[in-house]
Amino acid sequence: MIKAPHHPSKKEFQVERIVLFSDAVFAIAMTLLIVDLKVPDIKGTGISERHFLESMLTLLPGFFGFLCSFFLIGLYWFIHHAMFGYVIHYNGRLIWLNMGFLCSIVLMPFSTAIYSSYSTPDTIFLIAPYAAYVANICLTGILNFFMWRMIGNPKNQLAEGFPPGNYLRDAKIRSLLLPAVFIVSLLACMAFNPIIGRFFLFLTPLIMSMVRDKKTTQPSPNK
Amino acid sequence: MIKAPHHPSKKEFQVERIVLFSDAVFAIAMTLLIVDLKVPDIKGTGISERHFLESMLTLLPGFFGFLCSFFLIGLYWFIHHAMFGYVIHYNGRLIWLNMGFLCSIVLMPFSTAIYSSYSTPDTIFLIAPYAAYVANICLTGILNFFMWRMIGNPKNQLAEGFPPGNYLRDAKIRSLLLPAVFIVSLLACMAFNPIIGRFFLFLTPLIMSMVRDKKTTQPSPNK
Amino acid sequence: MIKAPHHPSKKEFQVERIVLFSDAVFAIAMTLLIVDLKVPDIKGTGISERHFLESMLTLLPGFFGFLCSFFLIGLYWFIHHAMFGYVIHYNGRLIWLNMGFLCSIVLMPFSTAIYSSYSTPDTIFLIAPYAAYVANICLTGILNFFMWRMIGNPKNQLAEGFPPGNYLRDAKIRSLLLPAVFIVSLLACMAFNPIIGRFFLFLTPLIMSMVRDKKTTQPSPNK
Amino acid sequence: MIKAPHHPSKKEFQVERIVLFSDAVFAIAMTLLIVDLKVPDIKGTGISERHFLESMLTLLPGFFGFLCSFFLIGLYWFIHHAMFGYVIHYNGRLIWLNMGFLCSIVLMPFSTAIYSSYSTPDTIFLIAPYAAYVANICLTGILNFFMWRMIGNPKNQLAEGFPPGNYLRDAKIRSLLLPAVFIVSLLACMAFNPIIGRFFLFLTPLIMSMVRDKKTTQPSPNK
Repeated sequence: MIKAPHHPSKKEFQVERIVLFSDAVFAIAMTLLIVDLKVPDIKGTGISERHFLESMLTLLPGFFGFLCSFFLIGLYWFIHHAMFGYVIHYNGRLIWLNMGFLCSIVLMPFSTAIYSSYSTPDTIFLIAPYAAYVANICLTGILNFFMWRMIGNPKNQLAEGFPPGNYLRDAKIRSLLLPAVFIVSLLACMAFNPIIGRFFLFLTPLIMSMVRDKKTTQPSPNK
Repeated sequence: MIKAPHHPSKKEFQVERIVLFSDAVFAIAMTLLIVDLKVPDIKGTGISERHFLESMLTLLPGFFGFLCSFFLIGLYWFIHHAMFGYVIHYNGRLIWLNMGFLCSIVLMPFSTAIYSSYSTPDTIFLIAPYAAYVANICLTGILNFFMWRMIGNPKNQLAEGFPPGNYLRDAKIRSLLLPAVFIVSLLACMAFNPIIGRFFLFLTPLIMSMVRDKKTTQPSPNK
Repeated sequence: MIKAPHHPSKKEFQVERIVLFSDAVFAIAMTLLIVDLKVPDIKGTGISERHFLESMLTLLPGFFGFLCSFFLIGLYWFIHHAMFGYVIHYNGRLIWLNMGFLCSIVLMPFSTAIYSSYSTPDTIFLIAPYAAYVANICLTGILNFFMWRMIGNPKNQLAEGFPPGNYLRDAKIRSLLLPAVFIVSLLACMAFNPIIGRFFLFLTPLIMSMVRDKKTTQPSPNK
Repeated sequence: MIKAPHHPSKKEFQVERIVLFSDAVFAIAMTLLIVDLKVPDIKGTGISERHFLESMLTLLPGFFGFLCSFFLIGLYWFIHHAMFGYVIHYNGRLIWLNMGFLCSIVLMPFSTAIYSSYSTPDTIFLIAPYAAYVANICLTGILNFFMWRMIGNPKNQLAEGFPPGNYLRDAKIRSLLLPAVFIVSLLACMAFNPIIGRFFLFLTPLIMSMVRDKKTTQPSPNK
């Protein structure tokens, strides 16, 4: 029998530490998104309520990008929270896969900034900036899929206590659904029009609700 | 009976993780406020103690905005800390309502920067920047109200052990009091004068003390 | 008997949450210090090893400021860690005093940036920027003193298990020692010369060692 | 017998707090790396997919630097996680050594920015920026070595439960291996060519795998 890689009294805390370190990365990535929203400087152009509101309008794509990415990272935190609710062991491969996943999360503020910067009326027809954003989301989704697969594999002995039925299979499918929506949106941008293509993103809340509905079934009698 | 969405040994930690993730977001939002306070660059305009102090004076609105938002986010942390002192279960709806609340907190450094940027003598007569700040505070207060309502509803089985009497009712009222002060202040800005209107904010410490007085009644015999 | 302001099973975690929230603020304040160290842009002035090294030299005051503030905030974390090792209860006043203390910590990257920006050969003779830095350190030290006083007061029932002897008295004295060194340094700047005055700061490690020597007396037989 | 520097019920949490504080610093340092990746502004130079992709190419050295430093800090987190899996006591010297180690980690985003800024075709021949980066990595590695030595020394009574055999000796050797690779790479830059020298960095994953292979030997039967 191989010795566990920590002091016996530390088993629980070593898993918790992976989780809390991940949480810090999630929290910082979500909060850094706001740093890219700069207050418009209208002092040179004349100061009136109207000028202020007009300059705020130019922030709208960035604000939409902030909200979109905030709740996307929030969604991945939600999934991470559900996933690690079953994890009771760890190994080096889990830590490194998690690190890669966090790297993809940390890239989000950057790819969001690319996507937002090129969403002005002049630049929205560009496909490449949007493709960079979609690539980031695909990377996150695919790494999330591999995490579910590693944790769900009983041979790895990392987790136990999963709900009966198709819980794990459904979790893996959902991991790949969000990237799929964004790829469809990207293809629609290329085939039709960048505005129409982005409208496909409004499917995201639908995906979110699909993720939410089946995940947490706390025994509460009300809706 | 429905299975809990985590390993049996993880029940407590899964609730703690929601709380500690929220704390990281609170802490980063509070600390990011300082990033908008830039050291004035006086090198071009001549270097003397007097020039330095004059340039520091231009920072005063930003500094006041920093203090105001720091303690506002601090107040919401205080309320969040008190609230989750009774939460022993969680479900997906609580996580997402909390996420929306955190989104509103993360927007604070941005709306504070808007408010501060347009508080110079030239721009203080603008209503819209101040309205953006007030809107952010209202959103935070209203989401806070809904969190108390969700957690306080015994049907949700999320929390227990509340103090007897009007604790929950008072908490909900207080959630809406701070937004009310800011709306009154905004209306006074529009009706009278932006300086007079902002003086209504000095009611905030009063509200704070109302929140503080009744909340934590640790059994300590001294004042 | 008054009811505790949380679910009975949450007592320990509610105190831990105050501590971990504080830690997040400490950690972010320490890390934000590095953001002010900008890589010098020498591309316009010609590119050679010599130009690079010369431009790095202009960063030296900022780098010294970074190190100084990093270990100062680190010292206050160290004291906070020691202090909360005895805290087993909390009340609203402790949370708000701690919040004020954290506010002073968060101001550190800002006052460090002021101090560093005006430490170039042209500006080092200015007293006011250095005074702003010293004021921040004094505020932190004084709030730290009041925290020791609140926690150490047995009537507050916040902490117990202090080492016998003069532990609390010494902790309070040490809280005021560091501000004292900086005030002496500031006075020496005004009386003699800003360079000589700053040399008094080299007393800081001495103070640090005084703080260290008596604080943690883990039962270890070696030095 | 000397009294422990905390309330008896707090022993475990006081060690955990050192670890979670370190985690916050690690997480912020890793996330701050992305802040230096600025979205290229091509609006002035003409807007087309081609211009966008060309401007993205100029980001490549910065992107490579981000990935390199993200996983380097990640590697040190991994080692820190393994190391503190055995730590059950603490003293002031451990806290301060850890603080110095964290300082070196916090410097990483800065030295990475130096290294990346001078990795353009015009500036890659400069040795000094790369030497600054290598110096930071050496400092981190050497402090890591001293942490293993302090923790592994049974006289300090800080840790127990290490795996039998050469675990501690191997950990100390690995601490010094990564600095060694970077010094070899730096020497190769000076002796041959800055491009060839940097190719030695591709040995890093090899070092990583050496670190990974022997560290966590969770009792799992599969590969």
